[in-house]
Amino acid sequence: MNAPANVPTFTLERQRQVVAALRPLLPEGAVLFNEEDTRPYECDGLAAYRQLPMVVVLPQNEQQVIAVLKTCRDLQAPIVPRGAGTGLSGGAMPIADGVVLSTARLNKILQVDAYSRTAIVQPGVRNLAISDAAAPLNLYYAPDPSSQIACTIGGNVAENSGGVHCLKYGLTVHNVLRVRMVTIEGEVVELGSGALDAAGLDLLALFIGSEGMLGVVTEVTVKLVPKPQVARVIMASFDDVVKGGDAVANVIAAGIIPAGLEMMDKTSSRMVEPFVKAGYDIDAEAILLCESDGLPEEVEDEIARMSEVLKSSGATAIAVSQNDLERLRFWSGRKNAFPAAGRISPDYYCMDGTIPRKRLAEVLVRITEMEQKYGLRCANVFHAGDGNLHPLILFDANMPGEFERAEAFGADILELCVEVGGTITGEHGVGIEKINSMCVQFTAAELDCFRGVKRAFDTAFLLNPDKAIPTLHRCAEFGRMHVKNGQMKFADLPRF
Amino acid sequence: MNAPANVPTFTLERQRQVVAALRPLLPEGAVLFNEEDTRPYECDGLAAYRQLPMVVVLPQNEQQVIAVLKTCRDLQAPIVPRGAGTGLSGGAMPIADGVVLSTARLNKILQVDAYSRTAIVQPGVRNLAISDAAAPLNLYYAPDPSSQIACTIGGNVAENSGGVHCLKYGLTVHNVLRVRMVTIEGEVVELGSGALDAAGLDLLALFIGSEGMLGVVTEVTVKLVPKPQVARVIMASFDDVVKGGDAVANVIAAGIIPAGLEMMDKTSSRMVEPFVKAGYDIDAEAILLCESDGLPEEVEDEIARMSEVLKSSGATAIAVSQNDLERLRFWSGRKNAFPAAGRISPDYYCMDGTIPRKRLAEVLVRITEMEQKYGLRCANVFHAGDGNLHPLILFDANMPGEFERAEAFGADILELCVEVGGTITGEHGVGIEKINSMCVQFTAAELDCFRGVKRAFDTAFLLNPDKAIPTLHRCAEFGRMHVKNGQMKFADLPRF
Repeated sequence: MNAPANVPTFTLERQRQVVAALRPLLPEGAVLFNEEDTRPYECDGLAAYRQLPMVVVLPQNEQQVIAVLKTCRDLQAPIVPRGAGTGLSGGAMPIADGVVLSTARLNKILQVDAYSRTAIVQPGVRNLAISDAAAPLNLYYAPDPSSQIACTIGGNVAENSGGVHCLKYGLTVHNVLRVRMVTIEGEVVELGSGALDAAGLDLLALFIGSEGMLGVVTEVTVKLVPKPQVARVIMASFDDVVKGGDAVANVIAAGIIPAGLEMMDKTSSRMVEPFVKAGYDIDAEAILLCESDGLPEEVEDEIARMSEVLKSSGATAIAVSQNDLERLRFWSGRKNAFPAAGRISPDYYCMDGTIPRKRLAEVLVRITEMEQKYGLRCANVFHAGDGNLHPLILFDANMPGEFERAEAFGADILELCVEVGGTITGEHGVGIEKINSMCVQFTAAELDCFRGVKRAFDTAFLLNPDKAIPTLHRCAEFGRMHVKNGQMKFADLPRF
Repeated sequence: MNAPANVPTFTLERQRQVVAALRPLLPEGAVLFNEEDTRPYECDGLAAYRQLPMVVVLPQNEQQVIAVLKTCRDLQAPIVPRGAGTGLSGGAMPIADGVVLSTARLNKILQVDAYSRTAIVQPGVRNLAISDAAAPLNLYYAPDPSSQIACTIGGNVAENSGGVHCLKYGLTVHNVLRVRMVTIEGEVVELGSGALDAAGLDLLALFIGSEGMLGVVTEVTVKLVPKPQVARVIMASFDDVVKGGDAVANVIAAGIIPAGLEMMDKTSSRMVEPFVKAGYDIDAEAILLCESDGLPEEVEDEIARMSEVLKSSGATAIAVSQNDLERLRFWSGRKNAFPAAGRISPDYYCMDGTIPRKRLAEVLVRITEMEQKYGLRCANVFHAGDGNLHPLILFDANMPGEFERAEAFGADILELCVEVGGTITGEHGVGIEKINSMCVQFTAAELDCFRGVKRAFDTAFLLNPDKAIPTLHRCAEFGRMHVKNGQMKFADLPRF
C-alpha cells in the first residue's frame, strides 16, 4: 500500500508561521493545530489513506473564507476544503504542510422558497437537512447519497454526488442552479443563475465535481422537487446475473425511467439478509429493485409495465411493495449493503465505476472471473439503471498481500469500465484513490486540458493539489496504458 | 450601428500566404478565397453584422481539421468555426484576416444504435437529419431549435441550442453524451463518455455552449429518445398578460412539466394569425400553448390537470387539439412568428433572454413600458415554461435612428433580465451581438474566470476571438455597470 505515512511532515516553524497569520482572521477556537485537535481530520471515508494536517481552520462566514484563502495564497500554503469527511475517494485527505478548510460552521439555511422551488444554503448544511427544511412545503432535495444524513451540500457539489434516485432525478449537477464561491485570489464568483441556461461558458457544470480544486463554495442554490404522492418498489429475482443485467437494459429500452433501479448479486443479498431481514430471495443469483414514484395512477401503470418487462426478461419471482413500510423494508437491504459487508469480512473495498448499461451482463461475468484471479470475493451492488457499479471487494488487511490484491482487483475493474466505454467513477470522485486510473482513462492531451483549466483558476496549484488530475510524470511512473473504447494505445508524449 | 464595415481588411499578401499553406492540406475546391466564393460566408443569421472572410476552408475529415488548425496556429491566423450559419448572435461572423472553417462537408451519420439509444454523427449533420435517421427505430433527437431543418449539430453544440420542447427534454447539453474535438494545437480530445457522469472536470458541459472558442468538433454522440405515443396541446386565452404569466408559474407550481409551454402576446397573435390561420383568439391579450406528450392515459391526465390550473388562473377560453393535424395547426402560429414579423414590419430584432419564471408577469409589464420609451412596437413570443423570452422588436432600418433605438431597446431588455436574476441569453448565445451585455451580467472576477478557461485551451486566442467574452477594456469603454440580483455596483478593477 502506497498511502502516505501517518506522521507530521511539516516543520514546527512553518506551522507557527501559518497559525500566526491565520489566527487574527478567525474567531477564538477556529484555528486548530494541536495534534489532538487535528487528528480527527486526518482522513475522510477512504480511511486507508491518512495524513495529519498542519492546520485546520473553521471559518463561519464568507469574509473569513476570503481572508483565509488570500493568506494561504500569500504564504503558498496548500488548502484542502472539507465538508463532513464522508467522501470515499480521499478528496478531503489533508496535504502534508497544508491547511484543511472545514465548512462545518458555514451551516446556515438562508432561504427556502416554495414559489421558485429553490433553497439557498451554506456549504456545510447537511444534504438531509435541506429536505427537512423543505418538508413543510412538501418539497425535497432529490440527490440522496448513502451518506445523506451526514454529508454536506458543499461536499456533494465537490464530488457531484448521486444516489439511488439519480437515474430519474439526476446527479448534483442536475439539481444545483447556482454556486457562489471564492477563488484562491480571494475573489467572489457566482456561477449559474436562476435560469435554465447561463450566458458564457458553463462554469457551473465545470465547478460541480471539481473536487475542491477550483475554489471554495460559500453558498449553493439548489432545486427542490415536490414529494411524489406515491412510491412503490418491485423486487424481482433472477436465476442468472446476465438475465438480471439484460432485464435492466430492457426496462430502460421499454421507455421507462424508474425512480430507482438497483441490482444486487447473490453474494450481496446473502450478506445482507441475515443482518436486516429485508425478505430477499437468497437463492436468486440476482435481485432487482425497481421503484416507481409519482401520482397513484402513473405509479400503477408503471409498476404494471415494469413487471411485464421483468417477467419477459426471465424473472423467476416478483413482489411489489403493498405499503410504504414494506417498500422501506425492501430498500433496507440495499441501503445496508456496506455495513453488512463489514459484518462478514474484516475489510472491504468499495469501488465506483460506470459502464454503458448495455454492457452490464458482460461486465458482471468478467468481474466473476477476476474473483478467481485475485482469490477474493466480490459482492456486487449497483445503481444498475445508470450503469454505476459498486463492487465491494472483501478482504482481510491482516492477511499479508490481501490489501494489495484488493487494490489491484479494484484497479482492474476500473480498467474494464474504461475498456467497455465507461468511466472510472460514477459518483465518488477521483480524489487520491483513483488518480492512477485517470492515466488509463485519458490521453495526455485530455489530461492537459484538465490541468490547463485547473491552472486558469489556481495558477500555483494550491487548492487541493495532487488530487483528481495526475501529472503526466505520475502517469509515466504508473506505466499503465491509455485504454479507450476497447482500443489500447500508448499515451501521447507529455507536454508538461 | 457599430457593425464592422463590410470590406476586406486583409492584405492580398497575407491572403496568398495563408491560402498557399492551406491548399496542400485539403482537396481541390475546399479552400475558397475569391470574393464571389467567400461572400456567402460574410454573416450568419444576425445579418446586420457582416465581414468578408479572408479564406474559407471546407475539410471533410478529422485529419484535415487537424492539419488546418495546426497550420492556422503556426501562421497565427484566427479561425471561426461555422455550421449552417443559422445562429442569431453572430457567433459565426468572420473575423478580419481570419479563416472560416465550415463543417458543411463533415456531414456523415456514423452510427444509430437503438439499444443504447444514441447516434454518433459528424458536426455538419443537420439537427433534423438525426431524427430522420432515427425515425425507423421510433426514436428521435429531442432539442428542436426553430432552425432545425437547416442548423447543424455542431452549431447546436457551440450555442447550446434549445427549442420549444426543452422545458421537458432539456437543452443540447442535456442531450449530448460525448464530443470529440480538435484543439488549436491539433490534438484530438474526447469529452464525456457513454456514462451519466465522467471522471475529472466536466469539460463536456464546459464545451457545450462555448461558441467555437475552445476547439473544433469532429464527432458528436447524442442521446435519442422514444417518440411519444400521443401529443396534445391546449390553447388558452387570457384577457391580461399578467394573468397569462402567472398561469405559467401556476402550471409548473402544480408539479406539471409540459412538453412545451409557450406564450404569445396580442401583438404576436395578431401579427401571425392572418398569415397562418392557426385559429388564434386575436382578442386575447395573451395566448398560452401547453403541450403534453407520452402514453395516452398520461396525456389525458395531464391535459385535464393543466386545463384545471389554466381555468383557475383566469383563462377566458380553452381549446384542446383533437387530433395531430389540429395540434400542428395550433403550433403553426408560434413556429411562424418570426416570418410573420417580417410581413408586418420592414425589419425586426429578435432578442433572447431568460428570467426566473416567477418574474414573468412583471417583466412583461416593464417591456410594455419600454415600447413607449423607445417608440417601437415589440411582439412577445416566449418559451414561457423555462422563462426564455424572445421579444421581437419591430423597426424600419430606413427610418433614421430606428435601428439604434431597436438596439438600445434590446440592450435594455437584457439588462432587465439580469436585474430580475436571469441571464442575457437563453439559447442563441452571446456571439458578437451581446458581448457588451456580458459586462452587465458578470463581474470582472467572473469574466476573468471565463478568459482564464479560454486561455487554457487557446493561449493565443485564435479560436473565434472577440466573441462571447468581452475584454475588461471593452467593458470599460461600454461604460455599463454590473447589475446582479437587483443590486447595482461598479465592476471591480480589471486584472488584465
